Amino acid sequence: MSDIAAIEAAAERLRGHATVTPMLSSPFLDEIAGRRVLVKAECLQKTGSFKYRGARSALSALDPDAARRGVLAMSSGNHAQGVALAARELGIAATILMPSDAPRLKLDNTAALGATVVTYDRETADRDALGRGIAEERGLTLIPPFDHADVIAGQGTCGLEIARQAAEAGVGAAEVLVCCGGGGLSAGIALALEARAPDLRVRTVEPEGFDDVARSLAAGTRLRNDRTTGSAADAILTPAPGELTYPILRRLAGPGLAVSDDAAFRAMAAAFLRLKIVLEPGGAVALAAALFLPEALEAETVIAVATGGNVDPDVFARALATL
Amino acid sequence: MSDIAAIEAAAERLRGHATVTPMLSSPFLDEIAGRRVLVKAECLQKTGSFKYRGARSALSALDPDAARRGVLAMSSGNHAQGVALAARELGIAATILMPSDAPRLKLDNTAALGATVVTYDRETADRDALGRGIAEERGLTLIPPFDHADVIAGQGTCGLEIARQAAEAGVGAAEVLVCCGGGGLSAGIALALEARAPDLRVRTVEPEGFDDVARSLAAGTRLRNDRTTGSAADAILTPAPGELTYPILRRLAGPGLAVSDDAAFRAMAAAFLRLKIVLEPGGAVALAAALFLPEALEAETVIAVATGGNVDPDVFARALATL
Repeated sequence: MSDIAAIEAAAERLRGHATVTPMLSSPFLDEIAGRRVLVKAECLQKTGSFKYRGARSALSALDPDAARRGVLAMSSGNHAQGVALAARELGIAATILMPSDAPRLKLDNTAALGATVVTYDRETADRDALGRGIAEERGLTLIPPFDHADVIAGQGTCGLEIARQAAEAGVGAAEVLVCCGGGGLSAGIALALEARAPDLRVRTVEPEGFDDVARSLAAGTRLRNDRTTGSAADAILTPAPGELTYPILRRLAGPGLAVSDDAAFRAMAAAFLRLKIVLEPGGAVALAAALFLPEALEAETVIAVATGGNVDPDVFARALATL
Repeated sequence: MSDIAAIEAAAERLRGHATVTPMLSSPFLDEIAGRRVLVKAECLQKTGSFKYRGARSALSALDPDAARRGVLAMSSGNHAQGVALAARELGIAATILMPSDAPRLKLDNTAALGATVVTYDRETADRDALGRGIAEERGLTLIPPFDHADVIAGQGTCGLEIARQAAEAGVGAAEVLVCCGGGGLSAGIALALEARAPDLRVRTVEPEGFDDVARSLAAGTRLRNDRTTGSAADAILTPAPGELTYPILRRLAGPGLAVSDDAAFRAMAAAFLRLKIVLEPGGAVALAAALFLPEALEAETVIAVATGGNVDPDVFARALATL
């Protein structure tokens, strides 16, 4: 069950392990956006993305027997690294199933953190069947990237921090823009804010052409993307909203937003220049919406969650070239 | 008088204005360094460097009459931006005297923050005489970049945070490496740690060839640099240790360290890759020493203060090219 009690319990398990990431601001960003912009810099989380929160939450909730057998995760990269590090910290063996075209940096980091990496072809293989097969064969517990109560609760700890930091910054009401793939972070934050800061409302942000969550929220039913490749925002290209995350988002979040790759690159450049943080394209779409979709927003203050920074240098150079 | 009471008072004036910057870590950095590395990410401070702390501290301590007349600062860039933003927030007019060869980004930002920028030729002009002349003519209060009790107290608030965050991370004893120009931040942190975490010892880090503080600490008397141009670490090229900062550093800090520009660039790349923060060369020398001078360090844990991130994209690209 994903609720505020589960999020509070996850926060207790994460205390002293997850980084309390800062809420950053710059008068230059306020000027671009035409409103006050606060950026929750979750790219500064351990392993460079928020995914460590959910991974550590789920792994620290395993019973001793399951922990002894080990875990399996399937991920294009950020969830993989989060699971790998949390597993290493907790002394749990991790096997990670990753697409062979994942960014080099994410593949390398996952292996370097001590996980066993198994790759597959994203276009031809049935990842879920492959993963279930390996998990059953080896007795591993599957740690899904978003559709899992303990993962959602872990991501929700980011929402607890947003509620507290917004209050400290004197923000009573705001739109909270969250980069959205399967919806684990968006749903977790929405649950935390419902309980702790009900005037902060979550709005999902996705890449244009991959806006399954926005379309699903508008239609009132889960819709799929036609493709899961073809955007620079590789970290958040998922086929459809989650079974667990969608009902939470439908109740608490929206309307969803979508931005172009070009806007994501320009947001990466603005984050470099004005906040001194490194974002990957998929971690920059919320900031892109905050800066470049002023007419789609209503609140005087917008909080953009900058979710990840695991970007190869050549992709980062593309962003800097927009300056 | 610079002491812990002055630092606590400055912290009170800065509360809710300065960012509490995070202490970051990565297992990959620990592996490079061969010891535990914590990075105080002061590049995430408002205006992209720690200088905002000292500026806000000094400006908020002005008497109403001085505040009404306005302030003057002389700076290659980071102090300039800190004074400009703090002045704007407090409704104080700021004039900034900057070298004409300062990084474009720093010149532009200072002007965009509402300050009146006056440029001079670093090789030929007598900056101090020029500044004193303008200040006297216009009745402005000079806000020095480091040799001023309220500035040192403001920088010391970073030390209060380090003491608390080190304790939270379970660190009892450590070497605290601080990028050092005139010594305002190093001295402020050293005073805060003396009172709050006496087993954390400050060691200054400077660019090779510009290690006036290290040589002065070794000699027991203030020595000058031959030059103040010729390193990529432009932010911390100062002629000599300060009159106020040197006695504090002599009592509490050292021995001083120095690193090459190449090491600073490689530290910038490591910070990009592993911490997702943007550093300028002068803000990266402490991390460079933590990573690449293992034999010069003694403690099992080292805390590197990453002091600034105001770097032009082409200089940042040079750092990424080392990957």
